[in-house]
Amino acid sequence: MAMLRASRWRLASGALVVAALALAVAAPSQATPPQEGAVAVARAYRQAHEVEILQAFNELLRQPNFGRNLEDVTGLAEYLQAQFEARGVAVELLRLPDVPPLVYGEIIVPGATRTLGIYVHYDGQPATGPDWVNDPYEPVLYNDRMDLGGEPIGMPAAGEAVDPNWRIYARSASDDKAPLPALLSALDALQGAGIPLTSNIKFLFEGEEEIGSVHLRDYIEAYGDKLGVDLWLFCDGPVHQTGAPQVVFGVRGVTGMDLTVYGPARPLHSGHYGSWAPVPGQMLAELLASMKDADGNVLVEGFYDSVVPLGRGELEALGRLPVPDEQLRADLGIGWTEGTETLSERLLLPSLTVKGLASGSVGAAARNVIPDRAEAALGLRLVKGNDPEHMLDLVEAHIERQGFHIVRQDPDLEMRQRFPRLAKVTREGGYPAARTDMGLPVVEEVIDAVRAATDQTVLMVPALGGSLPLYLFTENMGAPALILPIANHDNNQHASNENIKLANLWYGIDLYASLLTMR
Amino acid sequence: MAMLRASRWRLASGALVVAALALAVAAPSQATPPQEGAVAVARAYRQAHEVEILQAFNELLRQPNFGRNLEDVTGLAEYLQAQFEARGVAVELLRLPDVPPLVYGEIIVPGATRTLGIYVHYDGQPATGPDWVNDPYEPVLYNDRMDLGGEPIGMPAAGEAVDPNWRIYARSASDDKAPLPALLSALDALQGAGIPLTSNIKFLFEGEEEIGSVHLRDYIEAYGDKLGVDLWLFCDGPVHQTGAPQVVFGVRGVTGMDLTVYGPARPLHSGHYGSWAPVPGQMLAELLASMKDADGNVLVEGFYDSVVPLGRGELEALGRLPVPDEQLRADLGIGWTEGTETLSERLLLPSLTVKGLASGSVGAAARNVIPDRAEAALGLRLVKGNDPEHMLDLVEAHIERQGFHIVRQDPDLEMRQRFPRLAKVTREGGYPAARTDMGLPVVEEVIDAVRAATDQTVLMVPALGGSLPLYLFTENMGAPALILPIANHDNNQHASNENIKLANLWYGIDLYASLLTMR
Repeated sequence: MAMLRASRWRLASGALVVAALALAVAAPSQATPPQEGAVAVARAYRQAHEVEILQAFNELLRQPNFGRNLEDVTGLAEYLQAQFEARGVAVELLRLPDVPPLVYGEIIVPGATRTLGIYVHYDGQPATGPDWVNDPYEPVLYNDRMDLGGEPIGMPAAGEAVDPNWRIYARSASDDKAPLPALLSALDALQGAGIPLTSNIKFLFEGEEEIGSVHLRDYIEAYGDKLGVDLWLFCDGPVHQTGAPQVVFGVRGVTGMDLTVYGPARPLHSGHYGSWAPVPGQMLAELLASMKDADGNVLVEGFYDSVVPLGRGELEALGRLPVPDEQLRADLGIGWTEGTETLSERLLLPSLTVKGLASGSVGAAARNVIPDRAEAALGLRLVKGNDPEHMLDLVEAHIERQGFHIVRQDPDLEMRQRFPRLAKVTREGGYPAARTDMGLPVVEEVIDAVRAATDQTVLMVPALGGSLPLYLFTENMGAPALILPIANHDNNQHASNENIKLANLWYGIDLYASLLTMR
Repeated sequence: MAMLRASRWRLASGALVVAALALAVAAPSQATPPQEGAVAVARAYRQAHEVEILQAFNELLRQPNFGRNLEDVTGLAEYLQAQFEARGVAVELLRLPDVPPLVYGEIIVPGATRTLGIYVHYDGQPATGPDWVNDPYEPVLYNDRMDLGGEPIGMPAAGEAVDPNWRIYARSASDDKAPLPALLSALDALQGAGIPLTSNIKFLFEGEEEIGSVHLRDYIEAYGDKLGVDLWLFCDGPVHQTGAPQVVFGVRGVTGMDLTVYGPARPLHSGHYGSWAPVPGQMLAELLASMKDADGNVLVEGFYDSVVPLGRGELEALGRLPVPDEQLRADLGIGWTEGTETLSERLLLPSLTVKGLASGSVGAAARNVIPDRAEAALGLRLVKGNDPEHMLDLVEAHIERQGFHIVRQDPDLEMRQRFPRLAKVTREGGYPAARTDMGLPVVEEVIDAVRAATDQTVLMVPALGGSLPLYLFTENMGAPALILPIANHDNNQHASNENIKLANLWYGIDLYASLLTMR
């Protein structure tokens, strides 16, 4: 694609300046930063178009987006291209063979001296499993959180009242489709009012985040010349559990492994062989049990050794964060937690999580067999200093110390007999953690813009517990990056019945209008 | 049902005696026990009708038979009634409300002084799961064992050669539909040749064995007056791993539990909560790991205390059994076994088996969550002296000693928070082990009949590792019981791709012809 310019934006910043000034009459005084007027415009626009915004969002939510289904995500990328092009954004689908495309869009603002990168991922977690109350790709509006008695309600007609406490249930409603309608609405609002943007904008929408951003590095190598910005804004993740907006300076890294241990080469009758044949579920249980102590601390040798300690600024920010732990324990029915620290402190340590277990069948489907294998999905979250491959090496060394011989493929009969304890390890992709310096000047400008979009106290969080491929931008491309989450914390992201609270979607529109016009 | 007599059998023992004598010319000399002639007749009949026998068996195998699907098993019971009535057996379906019927059939033989009970179960294990190569209820003939390179072959035309090494793959092909066509063929053979039976016969075909024979006790209480016999013959289970026929004097009992442990009340993002929220898969692993030592011996307090030691006869029989352990290890790809004893010895101890594990998802479906629960299916096999409820009590006491509070229903939020470690235990039904005295006179007569049906050495096994509700007959009704398995040991019973080797089906026909005519 040639370097197209967004003609409607050039127009907006010129001919439509009258409309922008007209609006400024109703907005706060001249001393007010420009983004406050933009937030008021965005809020008024949203209030006038709530149902249309939700209808457009529902259309987006109906499109399946698991990153391993190439046809689905490619179709969605093309859909997004059309949506952003309709707002005058110059959009190109960057492609590598047989990989979900990167949606890349530009708005060049004459006279702007700063370029903001805006990252969203349009892919989502898979949506299988029996616990989905509704079809995950058929969004349903609820009048409250489902498990707090919320009931499905029909979509109101245009102009009817919309309660910000309502939620839309669908896969990716929060993670991470929500920023897309919020960005589109912010553009619509500013454009309609003729308010000029104050930065050049580069949009980058990824299609493989939930499967480990496996090709993002390749994309950056292939298309890095397009991706120079002064600051990356990552639109993903939830706001604080207290509901307060947050500016997040880093993320944990992520990796993991699938682990299979072996019993007899075929499932055996649990009567004819039980108390003689090795039981893979038992062997797996013993192996996993060896990995943590009773308090949930990881016993894998060296697991905490490479953690880079927090700096003074980060420790101070951490000290100012609310501690919602007691409320969360009550909300989640949790009677104990791992370690002795607060949630915020624990998220600055690497984690080891049994994400899944499978062997034979349970419940009414259980059969009287000794299964031939047992499988676990182990997830690791990493903090600054942890190298993903090194951390997996440590876990593998631990597995070997428990007497297991590690293989990469299902073993044959001879291998099975030769090694009494065999573990097949399939490493996931992954990436390291990242943290941005809290003292950069551009950081101050962003914080002001976030404050302009909310009445609440804005929290500064040294690092999110979740993961984003921030390191590719901060480490590989040398640009600072901030995360500006909008989703409610209780959105069930990655689980069944994912949802977004409308108040959080509305906050997103205000936030993006403010950022697009920040001083 | 009135006490109907099987008129065709009365006829057979009278008017058709000429045919029987005619056949005796080709059979061994007069000094030979009657059953040897019957075996020769059965074998000749089978050789002339192999394809028809297989076709009829396929019709039977196409009928789904999971005992919880009442419509399926009731339809199958009616089918069996028609099949046995067509051979002149007086059949009645004994019924209790909303429960699979018992198929009860009688052959009264004038002058017979002994009544044999013949037990088969017509229900089967469920047949779900992705590992079935074919539809489990669409039998497919293979020219060898599937995992040894066997290929599916078409059914030969009537009269074409049939290789006894071939196998039929289908759910219940071995466990436990196989005895049914074998019995029908034995009856056809004897009837066609006019050979009289030597005992009264009572058939009892159960429809709930694989779901724990949950109503067999009720049936016996309701219909016990019909069920007086001198000896029960249980037609179920596999022959010895060496291929040798066996006479089995007992079984292990069986029970189990489904065990669920709890994490957060809803699945959580493994990033935003990982290293803080409790991980149910980890908790379950630690609980299961505490139940066995590294050698596979059960650490549950008292687990081995109630075991009744073997008598001298049983120890001697045990000492004469082949030890196929090395061959089995190679065949099954097993590099270690639980305990230090032989398989035969281990099967005379109670067992504790992790039959299933489930939490979140694994492999390509794994999601980055901390699941809300983890579940295990635990199977117990019991030996003489173990009471099922007492054994489950011991396991529960162990769970409590690991710090878990036991509940019977899914806990609410308040319970979850109050008890850091919660385990929901759902006990299975079950029943105790049983053993028949090896020195009874009728036992000698049966052993002679089994020997007449085979060229191989017949093994005497004190108790099978598997379970059958033998105790209801031996303990409750005071009748001795023997098990006479016919299936190949590598039949995948209870697992996917269950099969029977045709040689074993043919052995079944010979065996039943011999038993029906034993001295």
